[in-house]
Amino acid sequence: MTAPEIIRKKRNGEVLSSDEMKFIIDGFVRGTVPEYQISALLMAAYFRGMTKAETAEFTRLMLHSGEVIDLSGIPGIKVDKHSTGGVGDKISLPLAPIVAACGVPVPMISGRGLGHTGGTLDKLEAISGFRTDLSIEEYKSVIADIGLVMIGQTKEIAPADKKMYALRDVTATVECIPLIAGSIMSKKLAEGIDALVLDIKTGRGAFMDTYERSIELATALIDIGSSFGKQTLGFITEMDQPLGYAIGNWLEISESIDCLQGNGPADVMELTYVLGGAMLLLGKKTETIAEGMERCKEAVTSGKAFDKFVALVKRQGGDVDLLYHPERYPRPLYAHQIESPSDGFVSSIDSLELGLTVITLGGGRSTMADIIDPKAGILLKKKVGDMVKSGEIIAEFFTDRSMAIEAAGKRIADAFSYSTVKPASRPLVVSIVDINGVRPFTPFSP
Amino acid sequence: MTAPEIIRKKRNGEVLSSDEMKFIIDGFVRGTVPEYQISALLMAAYFRGMTKAETAEFTRLMLHSGEVIDLSGIPGIKVDKHSTGGVGDKISLPLAPIVAACGVPVPMISGRGLGHTGGTLDKLEAISGFRTDLSIEEYKSVIADIGLVMIGQTKEIAPADKKMYALRDVTATVECIPLIAGSIMSKKLAEGIDALVLDIKTGRGAFMDTYERSIELATALIDIGSSFGKQTLGFITEMDQPLGYAIGNWLEISESIDCLQGNGPADVMELTYVLGGAMLLLGKKTETIAEGMERCKEAVTSGKAFDKFVALVKRQGGDVDLLYHPERYPRPLYAHQIESPSDGFVSSIDSLELGLTVITLGGGRSTMADIIDPKAGILLKKKVGDMVKSGEIIAEFFTDRSMAIEAAGKRIADAFSYSTVKPASRPLVVSIVDINGVRPFTPFSP
Repeated sequence: MTAPEIIRKKRNGEVLSSDEMKFIIDGFVRGTVPEYQISALLMAAYFRGMTKAETAEFTRLMLHSGEVIDLSGIPGIKVDKHSTGGVGDKISLPLAPIVAACGVPVPMISGRGLGHTGGTLDKLEAISGFRTDLSIEEYKSVIADIGLVMIGQTKEIAPADKKMYALRDVTATVECIPLIAGSIMSKKLAEGIDALVLDIKTGRGAFMDTYERSIELATALIDIGSSFGKQTLGFITEMDQPLGYAIGNWLEISESIDCLQGNGPADVMELTYVLGGAMLLLGKKTETIAEGMERCKEAVTSGKAFDKFVALVKRQGGDVDLLYHPERYPRPLYAHQIESPSDGFVSSIDSLELGLTVITLGGGRSTMADIIDPKAGILLKKKVGDMVKSGEIIAEFFTDRSMAIEAAGKRIADAFSYSTVKPASRPLVVSIVDINGVRPFTPFSP
Repeated sequence: MTAPEIIRKKRNGEVLSSDEMKFIIDGFVRGTVPEYQISALLMAAYFRGMTKAETAEFTRLMLHSGEVIDLSGIPGIKVDKHSTGGVGDKISLPLAPIVAACGVPVPMISGRGLGHTGGTLDKLEAISGFRTDLSIEEYKSVIADIGLVMIGQTKEIAPADKKMYALRDVTATVECIPLIAGSIMSKKLAEGIDALVLDIKTGRGAFMDTYERSIELATALIDIGSSFGKQTLGFITEMDQPLGYAIGNWLEISESIDCLQGNGPADVMELTYVLGGAMLLLGKKTETIAEGMERCKEAVTSGKAFDKFVALVKRQGGDVDLLYHPERYPRPLYAHQIESPSDGFVSSIDSLELGLTVITLGGGRSTMADIIDPKAGILLKKKVGDMVKSGEIIAEFFTDRSMAIEAAGKRIADAFSYSTVKPASRPLVVSIVDINGVRPFTPFSP
């Protein structure tokens, strides 16, 4: 068995055996198969794809390149949520405490933001003192104690994936569904979960820009979950405008606090409750998603969800006082407002443009080496469908970078489009996907 | 401009600009674009192909990564021949002296054998003392003096191609026609030629295993030649059995001497005369290939061609006495004969198998590091269409490796197939290809 033979096989559209994949991935991790052979194979996989069985085996090898955390000692069905990421997507922050407050343990290993989308870790670290770099032992003890834990990928988790993702990033081989699915699932399966809910974004500003590609990715993820005996339920959700009003790390923490206190934006609350309802269903706490959604709402109303978040922040070293008094947070040097140029209805808001603008304000990363300013960001005042008058404030933005202000103001203004008639409202949660296929979403399914 | 952007463009089927290709090839040579990006791009090119203009530009960049030899000071139209290589293909050895003897200067830079096909350099080096490692200055002075020179690729010739070929070899990206064509032509154009004749083999044991792929390669090579203003004429020739009787370096030199003395095998003589006729046509010495073929025959009959070969061997340091007394060559330790298992007609001889068997006898290379035994090889006694009796000798083989004898004997015997009826004879030269397209070959064209 040689690497060129294996590359040639994939190039010719043949299916790789388990041994052949093991030879490649082990060799990649040990450095005995050089990166120029791995990248040629990745490009061949981009063109030829991978079968369900190959994708599952690929995931298994990536998963077992590192440690698989064992949470079997902790009672209950452990359920996590994965989102492909979107602009303003802070759903994990209210969701995990709500679900944990309802009695389903949520072990969550998250990533950092890169490019136009943010990352849960960066948001949590906007809370002074919050530690995301727990060891696996600490991770286990936090979830055992409070039913909830949120950390970053440790060096023990799927090291092959980490190395391969870095190579894919510089060889234009990221956009390959089996590779994406294997990368996501190898990290999620290492968390010690029993079941998983997926939020696959679709539309401009989303990782999968067409509905078909989103379905394809959801199906690949669900097939992998199923081959590992983990129940997996996916939702295709619209990313045609940012989620909620806040974009930027601290702004999103602040909005998440509003959500946990029952005052969040309608779209964030809706998506949180749908995903939460699904997590309670998979956690066998309810019979339907609709019933789960009700339980989630009760956890918010009763204050139990907010208390769970406070417990998490306290346990992971964060400044709890900020959660009660967000107004104490340091102020950015500059705050600017954007006015509507005319009367009309907001017909679209370009998420991608806003996500990229936040980077220029200091609130995001172009490369992994960039340091984030958690105060920087954009606060929308109007969303799609809202009526505006000429001169009315549509957004506000915050930065310490005086040089960025002029260009950012223009980009944010240009990200809004207007129409004279009210645009038809579109459902936020489009479809639900499981091993039986895709169907339109209703809370009473499945 | 970044390498991942360029890889993505090719991956998505877009055409690369001249600047983008320059960025990649310069970066590859200088080491600023890492090999893992080059190999991903090569694999994308394998799937997406390259346009005529891209292929020409790619060739130009590879060519100008090194020195382009200037032979304009030497009178006459300089013409070379390139063959894609086949088992027993020693055509260059009789051809170059014949054409040079007819007054067309032949500057020839050749390669070494790898895998089942041999290389002209290895054959020449079977002549004790023959130097193929001339400097470019020596190369120019030899062709100026005797109208003929045969050397190996120097470090000055297309270094980008040398480096890229090594990478393609280990990343399963060899079999891509624009890359193959660019690689061949960047080296040929560096020789200082004015025109080029191509011998594209087709069939089992040939680099291009189908007729369609052979035509595709010939067309790509001719398009490049034409974009550089070099008249290029291609022939598609059958490689369904070895050329001539001899396979192995010294055996092929010996057979070439026979050819130059007018006693060569019919197929070798035929192909030599066709290619020679075409070279004289391109060298403007004759009006048709047929007329050129006649001139080539006269050069053999008169002894001028053999004298030219003697002059070449002498000038490049070889033992001329061996050409007059081939029987003086050192004998291999072992010589074995293969008998026909039955009466009948030889219906096919598997070139690929015989080429691979020669490696086991010591006469070829599995890797470039292998050292060749020039005495080792196979001498066929029968060819396709010949009638044989049971027990009659069909082949003989030579080696110093006693361990290899048993397996080699079996493989050589198995490479022969038999039929009870005489197989229909197939033309050796199938088609002729030029910028106007493909047509069946007749010596009176074009």
